[in-house]
Amino acid sequence: MTDSLHNFRVEQTPPESSARVGELLTPHGTVPTPVFLPVGSQATVKTMTPEELRSIGLPIVLANTYHLYLRPGIDVIEKLGGLHWFMAWDRAILTDSGGYQIFSLAPLRKINDDGVVFRSHIDGSEHFITPELAIQFQEALGADIIMVLDECPAHDDSFERVQQATIRTQQWAERCQKCHSRHDQALYAIVQGGVFPQLRRQSAEDLASLGFAGYAIGGLSIGEPKAETLTMIEETVAFLPLDKPRYLMGVGSPEDIVEAVARGIDIFDSALPTRVARNGAIFTWQGRYNIRNTSYKLMEQPLMSGCDCYTCRTFSAAYLHHLFRCDELLAYRLATIHNLTFVHNLMQKIRGAIVDGTFSSFKDNFLANYKPTDEQVRLNQKRKWLQSRK
Amino acid sequence: MTDSLHNFRVEQTPPESSARVGELLTPHGTVPTPVFLPVGSQATVKTMTPEELRSIGLPIVLANTYHLYLRPGIDVIEKLGGLHWFMAWDRAILTDSGGYQIFSLAPLRKINDDGVVFRSHIDGSEHFITPELAIQFQEALGADIIMVLDECPAHDDSFERVQQATIRTQQWAERCQKCHSRHDQALYAIVQGGVFPQLRRQSAEDLASLGFAGYAIGGLSIGEPKAETLTMIEETVAFLPLDKPRYLMGVGSPEDIVEAVARGIDIFDSALPTRVARNGAIFTWQGRYNIRNTSYKLMEQPLMSGCDCYTCRTFSAAYLHHLFRCDELLAYRLATIHNLTFVHNLMQKIRGAIVDGTFSSFKDNFLANYKPTDEQVRLNQKRKWLQSRK
Repeated sequence: MTDSLHNFRVEQTPPESSARVGELLTPHGTVPTPVFLPVGSQATVKTMTPEELRSIGLPIVLANTYHLYLRPGIDVIEKLGGLHWFMAWDRAILTDSGGYQIFSLAPLRKINDDGVVFRSHIDGSEHFITPELAIQFQEALGADIIMVLDECPAHDDSFERVQQATIRTQQWAERCQKCHSRHDQALYAIVQGGVFPQLRRQSAEDLASLGFAGYAIGGLSIGEPKAETLTMIEETVAFLPLDKPRYLMGVGSPEDIVEAVARGIDIFDSALPTRVARNGAIFTWQGRYNIRNTSYKLMEQPLMSGCDCYTCRTFSAAYLHHLFRCDELLAYRLATIHNLTFVHNLMQKIRGAIVDGTFSSFKDNFLANYKPTDEQVRLNQKRKWLQSRK
Repeated sequence: MTDSLHNFRVEQTPPESSARVGELLTPHGTVPTPVFLPVGSQATVKTMTPEELRSIGLPIVLANTYHLYLRPGIDVIEKLGGLHWFMAWDRAILTDSGGYQIFSLAPLRKINDDGVVFRSHIDGSEHFITPELAIQFQEALGADIIMVLDECPAHDDSFERVQQATIRTQQWAERCQKCHSRHDQALYAIVQGGVFPQLRRQSAEDLASLGFAGYAIGGLSIGEPKAETLTMIEETVAFLPLDKPRYLMGVGSPEDIVEAVARGIDIFDSALPTRVARNGAIFTWQGRYNIRNTSYKLMEQPLMSGCDCYTCRTFSAAYLHHLFRCDELLAYRLATIHNLTFVHNLMQKIRGAIVDGTFSSFKDNFLANYKPTDEQVRLNQKRKWLQSRK
């Protein structure tokens, strides 16, 4: 249930593709879609101040209920006036419910229809969460968009296991909707269903029948092949209402964003652009490269020619190369500024192309020029990263 | 030898103490003294952009020839247009010659009157440096103020050992002066002499007779008791020319700065304010405290009440506490901004008090309120830190 503070206007859906532009109205500003949300799990987009995020032009960030519940504690943030005050960010915030983190980060103890008992990945302490608590926590945090608690199965779970998780996610979504009381927050449901089209359809249709302010697609980009991700997006979007925002959780890379926009996605979040930045991976229109490579030692040009980000306006690639080689902390920030600016500019170009009716050719051009990370390398990196978080 | 681009005006020396205000004129702006230089060994003040340093108001920073020689290499910075261009800093820079780093960081291989053979602390590769090379490197880097190559004995070395180092430092200073050719750079000598008053006096007098643009006091604050540091400053300053800037290398803490200003020091540099910031140590007028302490978990107030730094204007202490507890990279930057602002404001207050003729009471008040780190803790920390760098 949302009041007039929340609204989604689909402004344009060109006939030749499912891509569309729109606007999310929130109590903390208007968010043009398609939009990418940088991840600030712990109430900070790693290395960035709010001023830097604002000067890039980002209208909304994501924070994570699971992380904030463990540290500093929901009560702490509530006492300090809510998440916007706590992190000094006056634009929009979306909080994830923590479902995904509980299933991917925390040593799971026991799940039943009532809720989940889990252990903290930090100190091993035991905690219990229910759909009602997930909403209560998110209402205390006070983000503009909040998420239902979902059960997120692994990408290689059996049909039966995924079906069970999908049914439970549906029941939990209903309970979240019932106890959700802050009308200044929009509550989004999360579609599950793994890589099984019939489960995706069922989940989408059942959730849509409940009438949420928005619909997320969860349980994708968690280790399955990329082609399967795209198919599952199509199999889900087809059964979601046209007039509500669609949010693909945990995606991601520039090429995935472009492909998913073409399939009707409005909202994205991913730690990828900021995480790889801290490893020295720099986005360009030709793909990403690693600034640690010796070939940049003497490069007077900026990271990417023609880029208007602070880093490229101010420093040579050689300086960034030097900072990374010395493991200087400034390196991580400067690369983060560049990658977030790149993705923000990509979203602007995407919206412009949709409005102009040229999105299909924009997409073809982009994908022809952008050399994505090799699929096998990508899957290995993803697995290594998921492992490292356990 | 310096031309009209470089000048030092001692503007005020109140009768009641040796404290004095002045101005260093450099090709990259005027630097009011007493001044504190943040340390940017690797062409970056750790975690800071040039914009942040500028907005704090800092007129000059220090970089280190030893570190830059090893990474990225002097030739790289020269090719990229010199140090100012490389690090995008258009205000003044002072480069240390690397003498101290060679003697404290690098596994020393062999020193003779000609120069030093040392091994890189990074990859163990062998290098040779002479006074002439130290000047050649610093001329290529292009800082506004450059330093002679000195030999820095350990704080517990014998009289004979220190005497030998002092004589060699004198000979090397003469050679540096002879080969120094860039008149837009001011060359400062470095007084050595350990904790032996007669050696300090001899070093100061001999160097003064050569006529340098400024005089540094080296070989202090390297593990000796604080009282001895202060005595040695007095024993050195007494024999330095009145009309030249005096630079106490590697100091330091707020209380040491105030004490040294009272003894006639004009210039300071130290990694301490930025290093301890990254450990969560926050400067206030009452002393420093650690923001990681649980007592700050719910503190709505800023790090220091009345502070005008970006961090204190924007965030609660509770938020900083949270960032430090989560080891978030933003924590290090925000604490650095605060500590550098604190020291910058301290220097402004010091200059104001000297001009007003109230420095003695300012000093007494400051020291009465400021609780310094316990001497034994301080010495242990310093030793641990020096050890960790080897």
